[in-house]
Amino acid sequence: MGTKIITISRQFGSGGRSIGREVAERLGIPFYDKELVEQVALESGFAPSFVEENGEHSPTRSRLAYAFSHQSIPGVMNGMSIADFLWSVQCNVIMQLADKGPCVIVGRNADYILKDRKDCLDVFIHADTDFRADRIVRLYGESEKSPVARLNEKDKRRMINYQHYTGRVWGQSENYDLCLNSGELGIETCVELIVAAATK
Amino acid sequence: MGTKIITISRQFGSGGRSIGREVAERLGIPFYDKELVEQVALESGFAPSFVEENGEHSPTRSRLAYAFSHQSIPGVMNGMSIADFLWSVQCNVIMQLADKGPCVIVGRNADYILKDRKDCLDVFIHADTDFRADRIVRLYGESEKSPVARLNEKDKRRMINYQHYTGRVWGQSENYDLCLNSGELGIETCVELIVAAATK
Repeated sequence: MGTKIITISRQFGSGGRSIGREVAERLGIPFYDKELVEQVALESGFAPSFVEENGEHSPTRSRLAYAFSHQSIPGVMNGMSIADFLWSVQCNVIMQLADKGPCVIVGRNADYILKDRKDCLDVFIHADTDFRADRIVRLYGESEKSPVARLNEKDKRRMINYQHYTGRVWGQSENYDLCLNSGELGIETCVELIVAAATK
Repeated sequence: MGTKIITISRQFGSGGRSIGREVAERLGIPFYDKELVEQVALESGFAPSFVEENGEHSPTRSRLAYAFSHQSIPGVMNGMSIADFLWSVQCNVIMQLADKGPCVIVGRNADYILKDRKDCLDVFIHADTDFRADRIVRLYGESEKSPVARLNEKDKRRMINYQHYTGRVWGQSENYDLCLNSGELGIETCVELIVAAATK
């Protein structure tokens, strides 16, 4: 079996994006992250920053944001809410990218969107709270909220979004081919294990 | 980091035991399966077949079996139920075996029992229902119950037992360092990935 389409889902701060980028580089295949956001923005008409923020997250608990995301713009989105319209464009873009051949796609529920393809390796990256809290402070700096609160908020929004659109439990091992604890195994070992599994 | 203590939890029929045996052989470390059962039998006074059947399974739904497992024998088990007494002996035996050095331990909630050690690699093996149903028929033959009913019953009992004694969700990726889909990756690749992760 040759190289596959690799989907990487990840807890916030676990290093999933860095791992994905490195895997793509070693295998010489495209890494879809910013390009995916840009394509969804182009096809949906939303700003890239809006797609980035809402493409794999449920809305924050702000009532205004929630109400907004469940409104639709008449005549533009076939009566769909903004969240559902974004989901539908994202599904199309991800399926088109996968059709082009082996690649790495990070986040955005790609494991579920591509579930009917036989050539995917679905990966989930997680790590304990201390490892992730330390990592986000090093990468993104301090903020008003504690690192743990930032982790919990982001992961809760990813989890709710995943469950809403897929009906599955986020992080349940049966949804993936390979789940890795990057805090315990280390980023480099995660890269090696994914490359080995994808090229077996 | 040298070779670790490897705990392997697994869905019934996923090949976890065969994978564990092969990993132990490649690493030249002990594989605790029958020896563990025998040691628990020796220390508890129960028959090995009773330990094998009840060491990692909640009782079947038979009321008699349930009532029996929640009885205690006065003066022998310090007032504990049979199930709790068996759990306590099993914890001791697993901790003693881990103290001897690197090894592979299959099942029996060893990931949780050894959670305070820093030298463990906790693995969960799963596969889709078709792969496992096919495998148990090839290995254990047909029976009156359908293969799928056999899988569901056995996994449900393991899941309830795990949740009861650990408070964790069985198969949730955060509980393990490495979760592998043996149906998708193949038994041989699972062995290679575990060996690579354990000797990094």
